[in-house]
Amino acid sequence: MAQQEVKLLGFWASPFAYRVIWALKLKGVDYEYIEEDIFNKSPLLLQLNPLHKRVPVLIHGHRVICESYVIVQYIDETWPQYPLLPQHPYERAMARFWAEFAESKLLETAWMGICSRGEERERAAKLAIEAVAKIEELVKGKKLFGGESIGYLDICLGWISYWLPIWEEVGCMQIIDPIKFPATSSWIDTVLHHPVIRDNLPAREAMIVYVQKRSKDIYESRTGLRV
Amino acid sequence: MAQQEVKLLGFWASPFAYRVIWALKLKGVDYEYIEEDIFNKSPLLLQLNPLHKRVPVLIHGHRVICESYVIVQYIDETWPQYPLLPQHPYERAMARFWAEFAESKLLETAWMGICSRGEERERAAKLAIEAVAKIEELVKGKKLFGGESIGYLDICLGWISYWLPIWEEVGCMQIIDPIKFPATSSWIDTVLHHPVIRDNLPAREAMIVYVQKRSKDIYESRTGLRV
Repeated sequence: MAQQEVKLLGFWASPFAYRVIWALKLKGVDYEYIEEDIFNKSPLLLQLNPLHKRVPVLIHGHRVICESYVIVQYIDETWPQYPLLPQHPYERAMARFWAEFAESKLLETAWMGICSRGEERERAAKLAIEAVAKIEELVKGKKLFGGESIGYLDICLGWISYWLPIWEEVGCMQIIDPIKFPATSSWIDTVLHHPVIRDNLPAREAMIVYVQKRSKDIYESRTGLRV
Repeated sequence: MAQQEVKLLGFWASPFAYRVIWALKLKGVDYEYIEEDIFNKSPLLLQLNPLHKRVPVLIHGHRVICESYVIVQYIDETWPQYPLLPQHPYERAMARFWAEFAESKLLETAWMGICSRGEERERAAKLAIEAVAKIEELVKGKKLFGGESIGYLDICLGWISYWLPIWEEVGCMQIIDPIKFPATSSWIDTVLHHPVIRDNLPAREAMIVYVQKRSKDIYESRTGLRV
């Protein structure tokens, strides 16, 4: 089964799609990448992911899998080389718990920060900083969440190393203060130097332009204001 | 490891806590149940689940696991008897995908329905009905999601069989029309007749009183209106 053809529908700036790219690269799985235009969704995307209509979508033979966390677990269970989730059920539970925590308490709040202004942005940034403080406690004393090698949680939280600094720059927010969060900063450095991560990231300048426009568009459509 | 003492912090009306109760009962795992007052949270809850401060919390020996989906997967990986998740990675991915879908698109929207009024309630009920239509397609031709026995998805979606009809009654909303959704209705019937589900449900009358008060309180605190 593992030998069947693998295709990935992604979008060049999506941190969710990169989770799947990193997992496939770490496992050494060959795949065909199909770039999706998320602003003019293809019939293929709408057919394969009719419920959420979003990337990433993994196609493995005749099977279709959606949602990045679900896909990364599927990849881990399908290709046993380079295990991503820990072996012990408790460590696996912790990885799943923290992946969800980071998604709802850091990713969503930080993104809300750059898609808002004034007090709303400040409140969102404050919540994001509180989430980082919890992640700081977790990563203290560890090189990576996966130990010596990139694991499930490093993949799920990997966007913090590259996307979040861009969001901070675009939103003029400081969320990861390296003085306050030295362990998180050191983890970011380790992640960014890992060859599979380093060699599979979108171009920074293009990302800044994209995030500036996207966050402005969302703010304007949410509030009806022009900025 | 599986022999260590098991304790569960729950709340009598919580559908999330019942997922864990059902999983433990299906596995035949003995545990001590500790009732939590979610309106006056105990120091134990705040100590064990400082990030979310909510039930359920599973204590297994010295290990603490939070979040119902994470706990049910931990239980499945720790006690191998009566497997809950399917064996095949793709079937596992589907179970995880649909559990998340039902949570965000049905549970959250239906609950929003009873915690709102007028057009807002109508909009929420419409979204909930759309989600049930998707679940109807999935369950068509199946006795249970787990095949002949209760599986992970039956546990995760089990609240639909008992909590949702109470929410419909309290909110004067019809979400699961048995004519439009015969397969879902038949699945509900099968779930409610399973001994482990049937014998582990909160009392209906007390639930109605609780949901009436809780949804009214949330509506009033959200809107500042008195009803």
